[in-house]
Amino acid sequence: MGLAEDVLGGDRRGIAKAISMIEAEAPQAQELISEIYPHTGHAHVVGITGPSGAGKSTLVEKIALLLREKDKSVGVVAIDPTSPFTGGALLGDRIRMRELTADREIFVRSMGTRGHPGGIASMTQNVIRILDAAGKDVIMVETVGAGQSEVAIKKSVHTSIVVEVPGLGDDIQAIKAGIFEIGDIFVVNKADRMGVDNVVAELGIMLSMGQGEEGDWNPPVLKCTAVENTGIKEIVDAIFQHYSYLESSGRLAEINRESSRAELIDQVKERILSVHMKDIDWDEFEQLTRRIEKREINPFQAAKLLLDQ
Amino acid sequence: MGLAEDVLGGDRRGIAKAISMIEAEAPQAQELISEIYPHTGHAHVVGITGPSGAGKSTLVEKIALLLREKDKSVGVVAIDPTSPFTGGALLGDRIRMRELTADREIFVRSMGTRGHPGGIASMTQNVIRILDAAGKDVIMVETVGAGQSEVAIKKSVHTSIVVEVPGLGDDIQAIKAGIFEIGDIFVVNKADRMGVDNVVAELGIMLSMGQGEEGDWNPPVLKCTAVENTGIKEIVDAIFQHYSYLESSGRLAEINRESSRAELIDQVKERILSVHMKDIDWDEFEQLTRRIEKREINPFQAAKLLLDQ
Repeated sequence: MGLAEDVLGGDRRGIAKAISMIEAEAPQAQELISEIYPHTGHAHVVGITGPSGAGKSTLVEKIALLLREKDKSVGVVAIDPTSPFTGGALLGDRIRMRELTADREIFVRSMGTRGHPGGIASMTQNVIRILDAAGKDVIMVETVGAGQSEVAIKKSVHTSIVVEVPGLGDDIQAIKAGIFEIGDIFVVNKADRMGVDNVVAELGIMLSMGQGEEGDWNPPVLKCTAVENTGIKEIVDAIFQHYSYLESSGRLAEINRESSRAELIDQVKERILSVHMKDIDWDEFEQLTRRIEKREINPFQAAKLLLDQ
Repeated sequence: MGLAEDVLGGDRRGIAKAISMIEAEAPQAQELISEIYPHTGHAHVVGITGPSGAGKSTLVEKIALLLREKDKSVGVVAIDPTSPFTGGALLGDRIRMRELTADREIFVRSMGTRGHPGGIASMTQNVIRILDAAGKDVIMVETVGAGQSEVAIKKSVHTSIVVEVPGLGDDIQAIKAGIFEIGDIFVVNKADRMGVDNVVAELGIMLSMGQGEEGDWNPPVLKCTAVENTGIKEIVDAIFQHYSYLESSGRLAEINRESSRAELIDQVKERILSVHMKDIDWDEFEQLTRRIEKREINPFQAAKLLLDQ
């Protein structure tokens, strides 16, 4: 099929089509991934996580534009907190990202979560592979923090940027606690707002408590005002520095091994299930469902009855 | 074992121990669930979802206290947005909830998410079962919104309360879009703040667009100020009204059937995996991981090689 070649050649329409296939979980998606797989593993994958209202989209846009000035090709995947039932991405983000799409070397895609609890991670990973195979040097993955998804996605990310912002309500501490350990670079956006220095200081204190051994990466805390395009250079420098650290420390090889292992486990589980779910007697399944409803048996016993015949 | 009897008798220490077993994924947990299962299915499960800083914990506390005045026994499960890597619940919530725990008929438990992406839902469901079997009339499950977890938990919930609050940043619309469809009752907390009527009006407009058929439940939008204990009565009334609606419309039976089906599917998958993962040759697994790393094969092909021998 010609789609894999289109993707490998960096063709925008081919990339868009490939991602749609993955989003739709089309049966051909697996074949496509197999075809492009040997050409993956070259991109630097950067995660951008933070609460709603932290200005992540604008930040991603400014980082992307600066990366382009440095002659890096860029892919952006924005995971949208849209309705899990109806799917679809938020119009606002799409409009904001429009500036980017004028540049042929930047590819932006918003993806709805579309009622795939647990499945977003593998879907995102496949989209990263498409962009990676298409030759993007840096792939940014934007997610809303404080959930589970960013942790699952973490596996395929090399550099994690956690975005904070002053004045997002009392519970910002909780958000920090939740996503603290996944940050390689901390960015306090909207640095023109009151309270920015408090946020920076708090982050500094939390980071100093988690101080690692010599030679470990020390996550920097950087200030920026994305809408005014200030502080972006420092963030991009930190992104490159972190990648150098990953390479020289051997962490990059470790991350790749861990993610290969996790991918194999996922595929093994999927294959086992797809083989053995086929043999299920769905009439009996329905009868057992009624018995569970009446509390005559529990789901554990019912599964045993269904499978052990 | 005596633990099941302790739980069924409503013994606080027994309940706490049972929940710890579930959190720890102890091997005895499955047996315990089997033993108590016939005694479940009586509680009214109420989900409370909303963004960080919406004051959910205080709201849950006030609702619980009012339910007690109406002679209902209450269970509370608070799912914490703590670090997925280190686990543990937030001290703040625990302190805030202390007032509740003086009442013997209220059982409160905070649960960390503890790096169980995807697994929180089933863990929470088992905790609900424990509280249900222990005879709690109403079980409240508090989760942070805008993620995936509340959708997964939705399956075991009868009545979903979505909490909003004025002035939580520009992207509040996004949060609404994300969790809109799961709400049976909408509560705007901190009704003493500026902008509360805007939030109520916006919610009203969104709800009117989704107007269903005659006889359907019309989600009310209620104002409250939880810290001042105002507006709580109306919320508790709405909770009871929604339960009556579920019973009289047949929705309750449907929810129970759907959740029985979902539980059976989960157990079937788990059983298939636990049987077939045992046969895996882990030496070969490691060798295949290396080949994936070198991009000699892809995870899909590797899983095939590993399993099809």
